[in-house]
Amino acid sequence: MLNEANIVARLKADFPKCIGDDAAVIKQSRDQNYVVTKDLLIEDVHFRTSYFDPLSLAHKAVHVNLSDIAAMGAKPNFLLLGISFPISKQEYVEEFLAHFTSVCKDASTILIGGDTTSSSDKISISITAIGVAPSKHIKCRDTARAGDLICVVGDLGMARVGFIASERSLDNFENYRKIFLRPVAKVREGLWLGSQSSVTSLMDISDGLFIDLERLCRSSKLQGKVELKRFELSEGFIEVCECLKIDPLKTMITGGEDYSLLFTINANNYAEFAKCFFKEFGYAIKHIGHVTNGSGVNYLINGEHKNLTLKPFLHFRESI
Amino acid sequence: MLNEANIVARLKADFPKCIGDDAAVIKQSRDQNYVVTKDLLIEDVHFRTSYFDPLSLAHKAVHVNLSDIAAMGAKPNFLLLGISFPISKQEYVEEFLAHFTSVCKDASTILIGGDTTSSSDKISISITAIGVAPSKHIKCRDTARAGDLICVVGDLGMARVGFIASERSLDNFENYRKIFLRPVAKVREGLWLGSQSSVTSLMDISDGLFIDLERLCRSSKLQGKVELKRFELSEGFIEVCECLKIDPLKTMITGGEDYSLLFTINANNYAEFAKCFFKEFGYAIKHIGHVTNGSGVNYLINGEHKNLTLKPFLHFRESI
Repeated sequence: MLNEANIVARLKADFPKCIGDDAAVIKQSRDQNYVVTKDLLIEDVHFRTSYFDPLSLAHKAVHVNLSDIAAMGAKPNFLLLGISFPISKQEYVEEFLAHFTSVCKDASTILIGGDTTSSSDKISISITAIGVAPSKHIKCRDTARAGDLICVVGDLGMARVGFIASERSLDNFENYRKIFLRPVAKVREGLWLGSQSSVTSLMDISDGLFIDLERLCRSSKLQGKVELKRFELSEGFIEVCECLKIDPLKTMITGGEDYSLLFTINANNYAEFAKCFFKEFGYAIKHIGHVTNGSGVNYLINGEHKNLTLKPFLHFRESI
Repeated sequence: MLNEANIVARLKADFPKCIGDDAAVIKQSRDQNYVVTKDLLIEDVHFRTSYFDPLSLAHKAVHVNLSDIAAMGAKPNFLLLGISFPISKQEYVEEFLAHFTSVCKDASTILIGGDTTSSSDKISISITAIGVAPSKHIKCRDTARAGDLICVVGDLGMARVGFIASERSLDNFENYRKIFLRPVAKVREGLWLGSQSSVTSLMDISDGLFIDLERLCRSSKLQGKVELKRFELSEGFIEVCECLKIDPLKTMITGGEDYSLLFTINANNYAEFAKCFFKEFGYAIKHIGHVTNGSGVNYLINGEHKNLTLKPFLHFRESI
């Protein structure tokens, strides 16, 4: 079957040096680069207009792209918006556009162009985001080194709870629904991680840790070892998961749309680094494991291999 | 009603300096710029899989974007591809992807990234193209000056004939169908026009001369005067138009998807310029009128205003 992984593999075979990261890097000046990313949001695959109000959609469309820029250690500067929509949804789209320009401005980005056209029945949104970073600050996913620690910035699984609550039209879970509907790209954190030489690789978690860590390890030709005891399950999170009849740990590991950041760091620098991060942002990074020679990702409890029957997060079409 | 013109106007109100040309300009180095464009191709709006074979679609998807880069006087360098498609069309998309990378390479461009996802029933393609040009070579559409001549590089109306023949499943008209299915962006011509200081404005003709010249005049705050006697209607073109029961002159003026180039030039430089163009490319540019103070576009016969009842080219959804 044709899926994202084999499409990327096929295109990468033709353009080996250019494809595979959150964003592409093109030269600006001698020591400065642009990074360029492009994300699609398709109605009834990535969003439903029944519970995505126009502001939420505008917010999400911008921030999933900003997250890709942040995941390169770069500062987002410019956006281009492509949108196609059926005439029946023009009121929704009018509201969307009004919010879209506000969200761009709030994120200190400039809308510089795009394209707009009709469609037969669904809204498709395509955004191109362009950021900028000094060459030496740009982080990729293929540069982790054996022995590095695996760390996460931000929460895991909460967006998945919000997604399930939205799909099931549950009235409560408002905080979780908001995290799903209006994720906030970790732009400041990405810039900060980019500036730290001890950070050896960086990407964002859009399809869930399970899939994205596997991508990082495959790109870096290393094996990931994740210690499950390091995942902190709060009482509140366990409670909502019980209520929704989903496993909290599996939800954290496989739940997509977190837009957290995943990175590796030289083990010797970790303690000092964690302190600095906390001082800078007021919350802690999470050290969840390390990378070593080998391939794939192992999930361990107290160092023992744990066979998890995990099913990765997939978009609506495949999962419902 | 929400259409492209009022969407652009609305977004331009929020980002006044940035929107409205074929491509956006962002700084590269002190005297070099990147230009960035984004075009959508939506199934059953811009193409039908019934008569667009995968190679034609790949070709068209790339070249409509290259045309926007050429229309800025820039050299296309990079592409990003976003594609969403239903599982039922994966074989078609597989072929499309194989051709897509070849077409990129043939056009000396590099595919640097993108996004891919499922959709419910239609294929949507979104391409971002990035080109580069010395700052002084970049041409816009808002810089024509009163007295300049209006000129066209390339043919008008032939793609419209090809579109009608394809829609009506007519077997002959192969040359015309090819022009519609596989337009070739005028990249070399765009670069050459960019390098000529006597060219005062430049854009491509994607929606037909009728719409695009109006856009150029509105952007430059001038009036266009087009002399209809300057349109050369070949015997062959008149014949196919008669056969399809369409008016040849109106087809030339309103037919879209030509991907010809429209530009203005200082009248004093025209004669020498036309000679150089012919020497360089082996075919002639067409001088069709001039711009003057005022607004809108007038169509004239021997200097007399001619009331044409013209209906602009619109995509499938609106026109069929």
